[in-house]
Amino acid sequence: MHTPDSAATPADLVSIDEIRAAATRIAPYATRTPLLAPPLGDGWAGLYLKPEMLQPIGAFKIRGAVSAIAALDPEVRRRGVATHSSGNHAQAVAFAARAFGIAAHIVIPDVAPERKVAATRALGAEVELVPMAERVSRAEQVAATTGMTLIPPFDHRDVIAGQGTIGLEIAEDLGPLPVPVTTVLVPVSGGGLISGIAAAIAALAPGVAVIGVEPELAGDAAASLRAGHRIAWDAAQTVRTCADGLRVPEIGALPWEHIRRQVADVVTVTEDEILAATRRLALDARLVTEPSGAVPVAAHLFHAGRLPAGGRVAVLSGGNIDPALLATLVQ
Amino acid sequence: MHTPDSAATPADLVSIDEIRAAATRIAPYATRTPLLAPPLGDGWAGLYLKPEMLQPIGAFKIRGAVSAIAALDPEVRRRGVATHSSGNHAQAVAFAARAFGIAAHIVIPDVAPERKVAATRALGAEVELVPMAERVSRAEQVAATTGMTLIPPFDHRDVIAGQGTIGLEIAEDLGPLPVPVTTVLVPVSGGGLISGIAAAIAALAPGVAVIGVEPELAGDAAASLRAGHRIAWDAAQTVRTCADGLRVPEIGALPWEHIRRQVADVVTVTEDEILAATRRLALDARLVTEPSGAVPVAAHLFHAGRLPAGGRVAVLSGGNIDPALLATLVQ
Repeated sequence: MHTPDSAATPADLVSIDEIRAAATRIAPYATRTPLLAPPLGDGWAGLYLKPEMLQPIGAFKIRGAVSAIAALDPEVRRRGVATHSSGNHAQAVAFAARAFGIAAHIVIPDVAPERKVAATRALGAEVELVPMAERVSRAEQVAATTGMTLIPPFDHRDVIAGQGTIGLEIAEDLGPLPVPVTTVLVPVSGGGLISGIAAAIAALAPGVAVIGVEPELAGDAAASLRAGHRIAWDAAQTVRTCADGLRVPEIGALPWEHIRRQVADVVTVTEDEILAATRRLALDARLVTEPSGAVPVAAHLFHAGRLPAGGRVAVLSGGNIDPALLATLVQ
Repeated sequence: MHTPDSAATPADLVSIDEIRAAATRIAPYATRTPLLAPPLGDGWAGLYLKPEMLQPIGAFKIRGAVSAIAALDPEVRRRGVATHSSGNHAQAVAFAARAFGIAAHIVIPDVAPERKVAATRALGAEVELVPMAERVSRAEQVAATTGMTLIPPFDHRDVIAGQGTIGLEIAEDLGPLPVPVTTVLVPVSGGGLISGIAAAIAALAPGVAVIGVEPELAGDAAASLRAGHRIAWDAAQTVRTCADGLRVPEIGALPWEHIRRQVADVVTVTEDEILAATRRLALDARLVTEPSGAVPVAAHLFHAGRLPAGGRVAVLSGGNIDPALLATLVQ
């Protein structure tokens, strides 16, 4: 396990003050999710759940998108927003844009699930499907030619501060728990979620380890942490995982600064473990989770030996699963 | 619609002070559930959700059971507890008994779902299956011969006070909502849940109507309210509904006093509507709900014209659904 060097945290990391300010901005739009007690049944003991599928769009991404859009100068905001996303960030930006009464242009990789594309359109956003490799350049082009502001999915400090409000809430709720929590388990894709949470936990509960969880098939963050520098995977590799929200092939630059300083470890789980965790969440915790959101639970249920002893929190990042997959899993 | 006569509330109804005391007793064991914003998608606008399937046993019943058992004299409590239940109250009493380190003897009607029976046994309780008609007398007999205290499923003021903590929480959360709430929709079976909620809402938000929702196939509360006195249905009738938690054929005596004074109306929904609401909750709200818990949502989605205008809260009472049914519904 990597030893985080939080003493060396430079001034340009996202601060707890920025996360507190984001909490104020998002309060009217996002749900303050509870920290749920461990479900009953085999293997759950000691695992508290942070159910972000209970957000209006079914995923934590609403926090970062609202945080960033609410922080814009009103004059700039009026010109609208653009972004690129494999799914939940798209819905989040569309939701936030609608809440502020502004236009949204969303560039979505053509491998994204149809259900997420349709949900984004239903929120009133203009959706453009492009090949995975062109998503970033196309969104930047849209922003440059229209005057819309680009709201990146993870490599942006107001977005990271918004996701960090999850860590703020976890820290607030850690106090009265019967089993003391040693570890917060967080899915890793581009790194925005775990960066924000790690920043909040480092400030408010520095004795608690923040540990990332990834699919083996998209293990770029684990490889990066082992190597000591960012390692990009090929999108053709990461597209193989069923965890469609975790296919981003490289951690963002600012997230990497947080991860290497404030994240204790990144562990990986298999596809079968992810699907089993998704099933167990539906039946034992009555929560519909998408595979991307179930990866931290897979780490607790199947790899407890690779994690610190004591109580753990699993951040369940979203619930936008394909209904046919859910039906197959719970059968 | 019936006009509640809350001015005439007699002193023997469960009071808001009793509900506040119950809230203190249950705080270490039950989850303080959030009030969730309306899901996105057709028909949801204005419907806030109170997700009681997020309780450790997957249902609100934990509140009443813990409230009643925590209120016992420690000397009496040490002799254990007995009860009868079609399912979720059984798990609740077993859970509470385990938490207090005492024995529990649970009498369950032999029509209850196997999943609920197994969950009760897994919590360490002694389970006895009997024909539906014998459940009450058998539980009373167990209590009389063993010295265990009978914890009735609904007709008991400490149980009602425990369920009433849901109303307390709803009233606390009503303040900052963007759509003012006019109505709280609650499933009705024996009447303990709606009684407690109605008592809390009458005290804290007297302008809000509490409305019961029942399956057409177990419409004894609606018939009772129309008649002005309690009407019992035949258990052979109520067993036909898929909402297995709502098959109790007659409202309890104390619940009836609350219902006739503090409940504005009881509406009924069809089996198809209940199953459609269960499906919509899984896919649009990412919440696994048992049919009994989805009945208030069926009223909002399919019978809005029979309800007051304005924002509504649906109390989702539980999530212990048969996995095969869930798979069929979300397919």
